[in-house]
Amino acid sequence: MGQHPAVLEAMKEAVDQYGAGAGGSRNIGGTNHYHVSLEKELSALHGKDDALLFTSGYTANDGALSVIAGRMEGCVVFSDALNHASIIDGLRHSGAQKRIFRHNDTAHLEELLAAADPDAPKLIVAESVYSMNGDIAPLAEIADIAKRHGAMTFLDEVHAVGMYGPQGAGIAAREGLADRFTVIMGTLAKGFGTNGGYIAGPAEVIEAVRMFSRSFIFTTAMPPAVAAAALAAVRHLRSSEAERERLWANAQLMHRLLKERRIPFISDLTHIVSVLVRNEALCKRMSTALLERHGIYVQAINSPSVRAGGEILRVAPGAVHSTSEVEMFVKALDQVWEELGGPARTPKCGRAMRSTGLGKGGARHVDLA
Amino acid sequence: MGQHPAVLEAMKEAVDQYGAGAGGSRNIGGTNHYHVSLEKELSALHGKDDALLFTSGYTANDGALSVIAGRMEGCVVFSDALNHASIIDGLRHSGAQKRIFRHNDTAHLEELLAAADPDAPKLIVAESVYSMNGDIAPLAEIADIAKRHGAMTFLDEVHAVGMYGPQGAGIAAREGLADRFTVIMGTLAKGFGTNGGYIAGPAEVIEAVRMFSRSFIFTTAMPPAVAAAALAAVRHLRSSEAERERLWANAQLMHRLLKERRIPFISDLTHIVSVLVRNEALCKRMSTALLERHGIYVQAINSPSVRAGGEILRVAPGAVHSTSEVEMFVKALDQVWEELGGPARTPKCGRAMRSTGLGKGGARHVDLA
Ligand SMILES: Cc1ncc(COP(=O)(O)O)c(C=O)c1O
Ligand SMILES: Cc1ncc(COP(=O)(O)O)c(C=O)c1O
Repeated sequence: MGQHPAVLEAMKEAVDQYGAGAGGSRNIGGTNHYHVSLEKELSALHGKDDALLFTSGYTANDGALSVIAGRMEGCVVFSDALNHASIIDGLRHSGAQKRIFRHNDTAHLEELLAAADPDAPKLIVAESVYSMNGDIAPLAEIADIAKRHGAMTFLDEVHAVGMYGPQGAGIAAREGLADRFTVIMGTLAKGFGTNGGYIAGPAEVIEAVRMFSRSFIFTTAMPPAVAAAALAAVRHLRSSEAERERLWANAQLMHRLLKERRIPFISDLTHIVSVLVRNEALCKRMSTALLERHGIYVQAINSPSVRAGGEILRVAPGAVHSTSEVEMFVKALDQVWEELGGPARTPKCGRAMRSTGLGKGGARHVDLA
Repeated sequence: MGQHPAVLEAMKEAVDQYGAGAGGSRNIGGTNHYHVSLEKELSALHGKDDALLFTSGYTANDGALSVIAGRMEGCVVFSDALNHASIIDGLRHSGAQKRIFRHNDTAHLEELLAAADPDAPKLIVAESVYSMNGDIAPLAEIADIAKRHGAMTFLDEVHAVGMYGPQGAGIAAREGLADRFTVIMGTLAKGFGTNGGYIAGPAEVIEAVRMFSRSFIFTTAMPPAVAAAALAAVRHLRSSEAERERLWANAQLMHRLLKERRIPFISDLTHIVSVLVRNEALCKRMSTALLERHGIYVQAINSPSVRAGGEILRVAPGAVHSTSEVEMFVKALDQVWEELGGPARTPKCGRAMRSTGLGKGGARHVDLA
């Protein structure tokens, strides 16, 4: 969406109309009608009472979680081991007690909840799509567990909004579970191609965050032009399925071709395809070879972004890639794999995570983007 | 600068060239040559080895201070009582020991430094222009004290960059002291009219922050178009004195006219003119009256942004205001002051802060923008 003509036009028009910056914080002269319209659009997208914009997904997680977890007296937080750094920071800054459950392990989550004080307010924090594994949280089970234990839920849909679900509302919406998560958090910088972050949720939660979140209050609002661009992107992806269809077709093609060549990768559930190299030097050499010999840029993700031994080439086919580009990439990767001596191919064509044992808790909980 | 044609053109051109967003974090595919050029321009502006961009001034203070204060083993930080929320947050997140010195009180600063372990690494953190008082830190004394005690210095010039000093390099540069402050921090969202924040300093400090700062690493880079706009603004204000001359002429005119009418305000040292109303309800009524009857928007700043009893109308003449607009404003304020029963006029025409006793420590250390 960062290249979509409607988005670029909206951005340039707003530059002409309102200038380059917001000129103030949201509470002191910096609120423009684009900020307000975008918040309305996002709350509608997620079917929530209200939404609140932040300058980034990082400050949204940091600012919202520090208030939500921090202002509930005695709150205990249950956080997936692979949650993003911005979630970790927000929870740390909240001062709330924290229990880490093993990645996507709902039995462990349930165990931790059962062990906690039944009267303490509780908050479960997870991502829908995990940025380094490309796998998906068991949302229905998490929602059930939350209900059983009377816990609030906070779901980071950064790698899903715009890309999955009806109107691009994300994975929870795709599973018909959006109303079972108290707060849905997203970014405007990935699927929506622009910049900024947000939360959507019940009026009283949004109001509390608006009143107390320091990363919301003490900073200049995002430029109206960026809000205008994001608004155009959200509106477009609410009404158009074409991009999501292309994205998913490319992702599936990639999964299929990698399986055919028995190249191991973590999960075939999303467009984030983490090819398991498991060796830092090799991972870098492969990335370099792909760039220099094949003109393909693929990011090598090494420790500390993933744990040592869990090094990956993080591949993300997009909606704008053509079928032949995906095919070309897999062919190039296969060649480089052969030449540089990539690790053993997957024995069968099953999902790579099964045969590598790296699925649950494969990547570390620090991640780079 | 947020309305300057060169800035708007640069922004729109970059939108056409590179799209609406950066598409990745700085370390993972999101660095554009505009980010790099802007960092070069900012390090040149401040005469430092290197500079590092953040998505905002808030995340710059938070991210830089948590690393600088947090990674120096045993570091003790000395922080002005009126420092901005983003500084407070960065220091809190650093985990370092903190001593608060009374606002602009160098005797107190010296006392605290003398009481600290002489072998502990030390960091002094101040602003050059304080956002709520509009007063200026005693930079030469702070630099001397820092030298005597072997302390590093971190200077927030958010309300000064672009607006004061040669080429808009800020107050430290104006006083010929820029090289005596280890790190100079600024925003691109005020004087430069766009969005984003930065630090400039010695190569090894910048490198440490680049490597470890979570608010730098774990977020999407600012849109190339915003970086392009900021670059145009910085370049323009480095070569043009006209805006700074107009800003200062308007500020001085405002100071003179307020003194003539004996309306109390905190400091006549900068363009931030804090008119002392000292009563929350009255402050709001005055702001409303100015808007409704005179069509002038002035922000009423109440607790918790300033301490109760320190309520202000925060007036900020800009470079684009005309002389007659400043005159009209003071006349309108005078009228509203009369009608609504503003507090006692200043007895003499001296600087308001002398007669009100509110100068040092007048505003609280929480501030809204
Ligand atoms: C899961 C997750 N949450 C939040 C963020 C932060 O979003 P933003 O880039 O908008 O700051 C990221 C990555 O950047 C992420 O991967
Ligand atoms: C002194 C000071 N430092 C830092 C900031 C944060 O800058 P930004 O608005 O770019 O986040 C502000 C106000 O916004 C400020 O007043």
